[in-house]
Amino acid sequence: METKEIKAEELDPEKFIEEKVEEIRSIVGDAKAIVALSGGIDSSAATMLGHRGLSDRLRVVFIDNGLMRDGEPEQVASTFKELGVHVEIIDAQEEFFEALSGITDPEEKREAITQTFYKKVFGRLVRESGARFLLQGTILTDIEETMAGIKRQHNILEQLGIDTEKEYGYEVIEPLRQLRKDGVRKLAKALGLPESIWNRMPFPGPALAARIIGEVTPEKIEIVRKATAIVEEELKYGGAFQYMAILHLDRVTGMKAGKRAFGLQIEIRCWESIDAREATPTKLPFDALEKLAQRITTEVPGVVSVTYNITPKPPSTMEAI
Amino acid sequence: METKEIKAEELDPEKFIEEKVEEIRSIVGDAKAIVALSGGIDSSAATMLGHRGLSDRLRVVFIDNGLMRDGEPEQVASTFKELGVHVEIIDAQEEFFEALSGITDPEEKREAITQTFYKKVFGRLVRESGARFLLQGTILTDIEETMAGIKRQHNILEQLGIDTEKEYGYEVIEPLRQLRKDGVRKLAKALGLPESIWNRMPFPGPALAARIIGEVTPEKIEIVRKATAIVEEELKYGGAFQYMAILHLDRVTGMKAGKRAFGLQIEIRCWESIDAREATPTKLPFDALEKLAQRITTEVPGVVSVTYNITPKPPSTMEAI
Repeated sequence: METKEIKAEELDPEKFIEEKVEEIRSIVGDAKAIVALSGGIDSSAATMLGHRGLSDRLRVVFIDNGLMRDGEPEQVASTFKELGVHVEIIDAQEEFFEALSGITDPEEKREAITQTFYKKVFGRLVRESGARFLLQGTILTDIEETMAGIKRQHNILEQLGIDTEKEYGYEVIEPLRQLRKDGVRKLAKALGLPESIWNRMPFPGPALAARIIGEVTPEKIEIVRKATAIVEEELKYGGAFQYMAILHLDRVTGMKAGKRAFGLQIEIRCWESIDAREATPTKLPFDALEKLAQRITTEVPGVVSVTYNITPKPPSTMEAI
Repeated sequence: METKEIKAEELDPEKFIEEKVEEIRSIVGDAKAIVALSGGIDSSAATMLGHRGLSDRLRVVFIDNGLMRDGEPEQVASTFKELGVHVEIIDAQEEFFEALSGITDPEEKREAITQTFYKKVFGRLVRESGARFLLQGTILTDIEETMAGIKRQHNILEQLGIDTEKEYGYEVIEPLRQLRKDGVRKLAKALGLPESIWNRMPFPGPALAARIIGEVTPEKIEIVRKATAIVEEELKYGGAFQYMAILHLDRVTGMKAGKRAFGLQIEIRCWESIDAREATPTKLPFDALEKLAQRITTEVPGVVSVTYNITPKPPSTMEAI
């Protein structure tokens, strides 16, 4: 496929859709393709292009790694159902939690999630599906960052555990290779994707696992998921760039039924930013902060303390790990 | 000594001082007494009463446990020097850090500090001094809390490792037993103690060790000491009840010279309260929060992130451990 950059302002989305749909159709022919939809804008746009070209010959899977936000797998499936796309939710929670068990180092957590996703779960799905074509939402920035060494070089087939010497005929289709994020956003609108997809708040690859300091367990995910739901509910109309809840490993003293007891602490971050390169904490009104603390300590079991991050990026980063 | 409560509003401080000075003089006679001054209001008032009654026959020691705030031992000594009282600063830092080494449990930390203070350092000083009289700033609330089981029962002589069966003649003098905090405050003013003593912000017994989550080391004390100095400097004119910096054990991602690096996080708490039983976070203006974060991440080595606690007490407590 073509790799020359198409700038957002030069992009004619209707023409681009027509060309890519045709291209996908001619590459795949009568065969089958598969795509792993995450609900992010890139995989969503790739899925829509693939669906237009291949209809039911594209298998769309959403891998539920157990690390998603409250109701996220169902929301993604229902959004796509309205667009006529059937999404299979694959429950792989146990495999991910097993891979994460005992790991505390942030880089090792990321690696465990990546490996489980590609080598174990998606690799197995690809083989079982009989699909020889993998649709991927890779964008130009991904390719550049890989070449610059910011992201690691990924041979997707190798990552899936597919030995291309022995197993012939697999092909990767990357229809978004010429676009950057703003181009994909324009494309996503033209593809009929709703604002919840093309205007989605940035969310990290390791999902809620990136919001837990220390080991990731189903219990901790449940805690940070509840806190995240409250933070998103309370801050969604404020127009901030990104907001999040982080579950700390450090325990702090609190009061439970009049007695001193060690409890959990949740850190809230809410960012103002243009492009995530620099960011400042949102100057939330104090009553909003009080309500967040009140709801989280009341509704999330075990939490006795809530903080708000007041450091800009740099020297902070937007995510905690 | 008399134990019947004297309420602050009934207290005639001049008369009280005269009586207690006379009483201390008659108990001690020509012998020697010793007092461990902490710089808190209770031990300061007891020290002044003892000094008025005994002059140089009262030995005043300030035990520097290495866990004090920036310049605190020198400030206390210089405050008392102006009042004509010589304070000996006893450098016991090594003994305290040795006792705290490897301990992460908050209760065990407190116990290690208490044991080192009484059994090792003060016990040795008492024996070496030849003093048979121990002056203590015990107030009525301490006695009540001990009787109610909130504080542990302390036999001070036993705590000093003095076997009263074998070693006769030790006597504890507690001239403030009839007063509560507000009475002591009135007394302290009448004794000529400066506002820095009688209007001192509450500060925990284990000092900066109470502001470190996890093991206490000289390096961590130095970090939290620097952060504390900044927080106290920035917030001292705001009239809050109490404010503090807490060094977390959890590491978070930050940026150092353009690269991702794990760093330390400092939590700031600032409380509005009448009597410490209930408290709410001070609604600090955002520019004050920004300045705190900016100064701490710039001036305190290794810190990349600063949070502000937004939880009331209850369910939080005022201190973190």
